[in-house]
Amino acid sequence: MPAVDHHCHLLRRTPSGLDPNEFRACFTESRDERVLTDHVPNTPLYRLLLRRLAPVFGCPPEEAAILTARRMLEPGRYARELMELSGNGLMLLDTGFTGDDTLTFQEQQEIVPIPQREVVRVETLAEDLVALYRRPEDWLDAVRTGLTEAVRRGAVAVKTIVAYRASLRLRWPDHDLVRAEYAALRQSLRTTVRGGVRPRLTGDPLCHSLVFVAAEECTRLGVPLQVHCGIGDTDTDLAEGSPLGLRALLVHERFRELRLVLLHCYPFHREAAYLCSVFGGVYMDLSLAVWMAASDGARAMGEVVGLCPWTKLLYATDASRLPEVYVIAAELYREALAEAFGDLVTRQLLTLDEALAAGRLVLAGNARKVYRL
Amino acid sequence: MPAVDHHCHLLRRTPSGLDPNEFRACFTESRDERVLTDHVPNTPLYRLLLRRLAPVFGCPPEEAAILTARRMLEPGRYARELMELSGNGLMLLDTGFTGDDTLTFQEQQEIVPIPQREVVRVETLAEDLVALYRRPEDWLDAVRTGLTEAVRRGAVAVKTIVAYRASLRLRWPDHDLVRAEYAALRQSLRTTVRGGVRPRLTGDPLCHSLVFVAAEECTRLGVPLQVHCGIGDTDTDLAEGSPLGLRALLVHERFRELRLVLLHCYPFHREAAYLCSVFGGVYMDLSLAVWMAASDGARAMGEVVGLCPWTKLLYATDASRLPEVYVIAAELYREALAEAFGDLVTRQLLTLDEALAAGRLVLAGNARKVYRL
Amino acid sequence: MPAVDHHCHLLRRTPSGLDPNEFRACFTESRDERVLTDHVPNTPLYRLLLRRLAPVFGCPPEEAAILTARRMLEPGRYARELMELSGNGLMLLDTGFTGDDTLTFQEQQEIVPIPQREVVRVETLAEDLVALYRRPEDWLDAVRTGLTEAVRRGAVAVKTIVAYRASLRLRWPDHDLVRAEYAALRQSLRTTVRGGVRPRLTGDPLCHSLVFVAAEECTRLGVPLQVHCGIGDTDTDLAEGSPLGLRALLVHERFRELRLVLLHCYPFHREAAYLCSVFGGVYMDLSLAVWMAASDGARAMGEVVGLCPWTKLLYATDASRLPEVYVIAAELYREALAEAFGDLVTRQLLTLDEALAAGRLVLAGNARKVYRL
Repeated sequence: MPAVDHHCHLLRRTPSGLDPNEFRACFTESRDERVLTDHVPNTPLYRLLLRRLAPVFGCPPEEAAILTARRMLEPGRYARELMELSGNGLMLLDTGFTGDDTLTFQEQQEIVPIPQREVVRVETLAEDLVALYRRPEDWLDAVRTGLTEAVRRGAVAVKTIVAYRASLRLRWPDHDLVRAEYAALRQSLRTTVRGGVRPRLTGDPLCHSLVFVAAEECTRLGVPLQVHCGIGDTDTDLAEGSPLGLRALLVHERFRELRLVLLHCYPFHREAAYLCSVFGGVYMDLSLAVWMAASDGARAMGEVVGLCPWTKLLYATDASRLPEVYVIAAELYREALAEAFGDLVTRQLLTLDEALAAGRLVLAGNARKVYRL
Repeated sequence: MPAVDHHCHLLRRTPSGLDPNEFRACFTESRDERVLTDHVPNTPLYRLLLRRLAPVFGCPPEEAAILTARRMLEPGRYARELMELSGNGLMLLDTGFTGDDTLTFQEQQEIVPIPQREVVRVETLAEDLVALYRRPEDWLDAVRTGLTEAVRRGAVAVKTIVAYRASLRLRWPDHDLVRAEYAALRQSLRTTVRGGVRPRLTGDPLCHSLVFVAAEECTRLGVPLQVHCGIGDTDTDLAEGSPLGLRALLVHERFRELRLVLLHCYPFHREAAYLCSVFGGVYMDLSLAVWMAASDGARAMGEVVGLCPWTKLLYATDASRLPEVYVIAAELYREALAEAFGDLVTRQLLTLDEALAAGRLVLAGNARKVYRL
Repeated sequence: MPAVDHHCHLLRRTPSGLDPNEFRACFTESRDERVLTDHVPNTPLYRLLLRRLAPVFGCPPEEAAILTARRMLEPGRYARELMELSGNGLMLLDTGFTGDDTLTFQEQQEIVPIPQREVVRVETLAEDLVALYRRPEDWLDAVRTGLTEAVRRGAVAVKTIVAYRASLRLRWPDHDLVRAEYAALRQSLRTTVRGGVRPRLTGDPLCHSLVFVAAEECTRLGVPLQVHCGIGDTDTDLAEGSPLGLRALLVHERFRELRLVLLHCYPFHREAAYLCSVFGGVYMDLSLAVWMAASDGARAMGEVVGLCPWTKLLYATDASRLPEVYVIAAELYREALAEAFGDLVTRQLLTLDEALAAGRLVLAGNARKVYRL
């Protein structure tokens, strides 16, 4: 059945002419040349993808052969065909992570014949506004307005990557600290390669202020807040990255109607499953983890379906850049679900029919409900 | 063989006439209506229990049929019969968790034909004493006296739910803070529905003082101290709920003879197993986790029996309210043990006879020794 | 194939005439008599080793029989023969953990016919120097010189056991605190049983200073820094023992070329695998955990090989004292690898040939590269 990928990213503009390390970089969270050169090829994920891509490109399951085959493809057609192989029927796109070589949301919609909706990344929106406001109160008000406008123009959710910029152990910020750090941030304003003026938002006082503002607006607007938790690139301090740190968003009455979606979660996925089991508004996925950790991603899925109600579990790839990533990530997520629910059937906890119905909810039904699609 | 359930609670007085959400609430740690309505039915545990209860009530494995069947039962007889199905030969009851509709310890002993012993919850005892003492020193002395009297009248252990009221990372309290917080606590005294006057104890200084006092008295009295760790309802901040936080009770000479029993533990059960493996006085169970997390509870049991000596592992349901909970929890714990020790046999780490002997210790022998029954 | 055991310790001088608790003490991290007497025999590891040692000694698989058989052996020959059974072709020895009855590195090389290289423990080296220097700056400079000399005389790595003396959450020390604590440390100087004068180094300021100095010198000298993480004896506060606490060594440019080897890791092995997957210089093993946790050590290996590139995973026993420990630890590590990589083959993530090649790297190839052997 067509799935709703509730969390993925934009494609590269020119995905085909890559050298080995550029290709490998799409299948790791590392940006370290040594990892790309010496270690990525020595992972279960990479060996698997060589074997699975070979028949797609009609070549031997070897990196060099696949890189050569990719170079000969017409980029648009190849993207179209592979993206359809993913089995995704709808994609929710975090448009806030872009490089110089990333398609725009507009362009991607033209190339990829799968319906797509926008998720607005609050840090990106907020950074764009720093230059315009002298006082943090005004800046945060502008963020609220920006989120409202994003939802009005079609965004179906807000995402925060606070874990890449600060601790995920949320604390109510001290106003004096916020004022001091905001002043310092404005000092750091610099002109970017694209000609815009934007700072890099970091530190608990400003980042946590932003999360609380985003949570309030999401509650008011009736859209979910996606939160990056657990593994990611080296910007995240994983020691501070457990979803348990989000307690302030869970126990306060003002966020009672907030739908909070925990992304990735691994290796704190049992903790995430617990949160899903007790707090009405919390949902989770194992995006990124399922393909990155290969066999252990599937094991993590088996761990999660014990405690997390399957009406709280979502399907996502967290894929970006290359169409191949979407395909592999989608396949592995479906296989992990099949293994996890299959185990529940083997254990006689579910009937086969119940397991199939549960799987369908995870692949699409839950996301349609959470995001009101 | 008859088991010693070393940690469970009191039954409801009127367990039979429940609506769906009241019934579901007994199989989750959530108190959120949304979880009860939309998500509890979509858990492996709930599907399993419908299927297992159907033959007990002689009805189809559907919630509505089971709720109807339950309504027709004579409450006393049904409780008696189901409780015997649990296979429990002795129950240690935490009597400190009660609602308006809970049996007294006395009443439950009359209804349930299984021997039962009391475990005294230190926070409940302590809250009842706040109104009587102006100074925290006198209050803590009265707690000591209360614990001594409880043991004299038959209590076999003390339990703390400090993790529901404060961090489980125990720190020696500052006396000035204790004095200030105790004064504030007395300000908050209010008359309860039952006519008693009691405050709600929270915060590290008072709660940690109480734990240290309880640990000292348990050491002196020679009874174990049970500590709630890991998962539970939303009062607990799981980020602060690892049993590793109890180190202050483990490394100080004055607690050397203390027997410390870690309850639930999940998802920190590997950490708990480690503590059991190195500290002579530490014991653990996976109560609550084994049934709540269903398949992953069984997996957690498999993880635990690697490092935790099986002479340190205890059997418990953490069941409360409905006889059905005791039965399901008991079955799943026995099945989890069978699976975990069976795996050790398959791996040729144990012989079948060794595994059976180990299982018997977990079900009853260890508890008899730890609680000196 | 002969393996490179990149982390083990020195043998006892008189390993044969042990009473039950002395023997059991070699198969646990506990030093608690109650654990030795009542619980060590009730672990999967202990039952397994009785069964595996019985044919080695030609006696029944019972503790008493094995202790008797051991007493009759010629110590040197028995050590030689058992150590060869381990399949180790090269051993890297942490020589910093010694008791009154430990062989010297020299003596062990004479007895054990397996090539051996030294790993220098920075805390031991540093403690020996405290008496000689009044100012902490001079002391730390002497540590640098000592490490340089150790490497010059043949040491292939430096090891830190900071997790036994302080938090593993490294923080840049405050110089005033370092000065105050160093002065206090010198006050504590005492004459040891061996006639030397040495203090016991503890606390974050001094221990973290030492780790940063060791990391700088390792970077400069081009040798790896081994870090004890996760489980160990009761000196370690496991709540502070996650390898995620080492972030300060991972993100600063000055340590970019440092090779950091995470030892043991359990139960934070998924976190360790994540660090290996993103940081070029990080490596890991599951030494100690694999044998101590028996079945769950093997499961942990299965968890690790999902995310950790197999070119980042090392083989080690962490064995010490008795030849039997080396043999059992070596067997269980090889079996855990076989199970983990076998599972990857079953899942069609790897071919059998790929799995075999990966296993060979873990057993020897990776260590040869990391330690430049």
